[in-house]
Amino acid sequence: MDHSATTPLCSEALQAMEGVLHENYGNPSALHAKGGAARDTVTEARKAVAAAMGVTPAEIYFSHSGTLANNTAIFGAASSRKKRGGRIVTTAAEHPSVGRCMDALEAQGFEVIRLAPTAEGSFSPEALMAAVNDRTVLVSAMLVNNETGAVNPVEYIAPAVRRANAPALIHIDAIQGFGKLPFRPARIGADLVTVSGHKLHGPKGVGALYVRRGVHLNNYVYGGGQENGLFSGTENVPGIAGFGAAVKALPDPKAQLAVMQQKKNFLLERLSAYPQIAVNSPSNGLPYILNFSVTGIPSQVLINFLSARGIYVSAGSACKKGHRSEVLTAMGLPPERIDSAIRVSMSRFTTSEELSAFADAIGDAVRGIRTKL
Amino acid sequence: MDHSATTPLCSEALQAMEGVLHENYGNPSALHAKGGAARDTVTEARKAVAAAMGVTPAEIYFSHSGTLANNTAIFGAASSRKKRGGRIVTTAAEHPSVGRCMDALEAQGFEVIRLAPTAEGSFSPEALMAAVNDRTVLVSAMLVNNETGAVNPVEYIAPAVRRANAPALIHIDAIQGFGKLPFRPARIGADLVTVSGHKLHGPKGVGALYVRRGVHLNNYVYGGGQENGLFSGTENVPGIAGFGAAVKALPDPKAQLAVMQQKKNFLLERLSAYPQIAVNSPSNGLPYILNFSVTGIPSQVLINFLSARGIYVSAGSACKKGHRSEVLTAMGLPPERIDSAIRVSMSRFTTSEELSAFADAIGDAVRGIRTKL
Repeated sequence: MDHSATTPLCSEALQAMEGVLHENYGNPSALHAKGGAARDTVTEARKAVAAAMGVTPAEIYFSHSGTLANNTAIFGAASSRKKRGGRIVTTAAEHPSVGRCMDALEAQGFEVIRLAPTAEGSFSPEALMAAVNDRTVLVSAMLVNNETGAVNPVEYIAPAVRRANAPALIHIDAIQGFGKLPFRPARIGADLVTVSGHKLHGPKGVGALYVRRGVHLNNYVYGGGQENGLFSGTENVPGIAGFGAAVKALPDPKAQLAVMQQKKNFLLERLSAYPQIAVNSPSNGLPYILNFSVTGIPSQVLINFLSARGIYVSAGSACKKGHRSEVLTAMGLPPERIDSAIRVSMSRFTTSEELSAFADAIGDAVRGIRTKL
Repeated sequence: MDHSATTPLCSEALQAMEGVLHENYGNPSALHAKGGAARDTVTEARKAVAAAMGVTPAEIYFSHSGTLANNTAIFGAASSRKKRGGRIVTTAAEHPSVGRCMDALEAQGFEVIRLAPTAEGSFSPEALMAAVNDRTVLVSAMLVNNETGAVNPVEYIAPAVRRANAPALIHIDAIQGFGKLPFRPARIGADLVTVSGHKLHGPKGVGALYVRRGVHLNNYVYGGGQENGLFSGTENVPGIAGFGAAVKALPDPKAQLAVMQQKKNFLLERLSAYPQIAVNSPSNGLPYILNFSVTGIPSQVLINFLSARGIYVSAGSACKKGHRSEVLTAMGLPPERIDSAIRVSMSRFTTSEELSAFADAIGDAVRGIRTKL
């Protein structure tokens, strides 16, 4: 129940990785047959990721993590375009791999506008329109919020950029949405899109950045020039192979969305028995994610209670351990609601038995933990 | 015969990775038992890497590549200390993951002194002494050159820094030397040391940076704060597990050096039958690496000839495909010698049968290819 933190490998990814780990250990930069075999493996995975995004393989660059892809997109865009303006528009609900980069750019002198999330957890198109001006060089927003599942109206970004006549690149952090929403970079005019392997049943240690053909992006990491100079460092070939296989194994996002909505509805129905529960996720959010608070039970107490039963959930993002959720804070929720929030995140492999067991455990927690307080 | 480019996984690394890939898929940042198991895996690997370097586990930070560790060490040191001086001392024979960072810092205004390698391929202690002044904030040199096996006299760096009363951090790129030389950061006064998994029969997608206790280093990548804030991004847990297991499986470096010297001598003896061969590696270099030129045969022609026989070697570094070796150029070798250079790099698993087959193939190349020219 913590698939937004990370996912188990699907069998296809595991099989692809094992083939590479056992035999195909070459360095893709090596100019002999063993290097060529590794290059072929990377090429095949690149085609798979490109196909899933509806882009060309030459527009996909593999990185060693989604975080590094976000850093490269943001710092690369800012340094490539800084002569054309100093404003950056983003949101106050970004993952730290975007948010901390924005803080660093602000310290460098960029004017960073952070759109506050509405009560629904997404940015408002009107606020976006007002924020983008003709000195804006980058607009960066996540597709799906990792803590609440809120889906941002990213289709408004390109019109806002056009209307302001801004020299802005458009970056979408699609780490939580890729493979789950029927998302096409070209359809919304995105220049840069970040995705990650381990959020969709691929391995850790691999991400990718889509860079639209014709867009020049300065590299952030320096070295041997791998991935056309954008991500230097020997490629994680088994990881890339696993990522490609996991992407190939994805079901049709649209059909799967309907299935996930049923799972979410089933869970909401079961949880509605407990008046102590307040749902923090928007009703129109990505149905894979459900964030809710159990009044009176601090998040970590509930996490530990569930963990002892072999049920794993998180309080907000796994990447922010120990800190109060900035996303729920930005949404305007009161501290006691934030401090009792947990995030449940499902996968296509989540069963109704698991959901029932989870709801039963929440019932036990509501009865058992509260009476002790 | 291309183990300096990358290595096959040892059985211990493969076994460790498979355990993690199949079951232990948690996110180390997650605050439940599944996350805890992943944290334990990372902790165990950290202890193994620390033990091999003779340092404490808290001084080891896992990165997603050796390249990223080098970038973080160099940019982090430069930004952490730039108020104390503007000079950086390095060598002209560094790997691009160091050399390109230096170019970038030079463009930012740092004064970068690049020590030219001697004819033996290493820097001269006298030149180092002359270069380090009291405005020097970083001295960075590789332990073993990846193209020639030349071993730098890194033990002279700390005395040079002390003599100049320099506020300098000392960084050693030990990617090619770690596990092969009996190297201890504390013994030579290093503050920062970079190592990589896939050069010593561990997996691709993982490196580590030693940061001496008490040294403050600014992070280079921004995000969720993993690895104590130094390397944000979800940890490549299976890769880290494989790295740790590979390090644990390393033989005693000193004893293994003697074995490798025998292998190198055997190869040199066999190659001495061909007067067309000129050795580029120094006689006192790391015996795992032998760089030589075959007069009249361009590197790529020989690589292809050998590759067709299932023998894989490289022309210089695998990370610099298609470019003339900067290292051999810096050593003062003539262009025709550089353009016919190949690098043979052995591992502890290299057999005398393999070395014989390689020498036979070189003999065939000398006879067969040259007559066609």
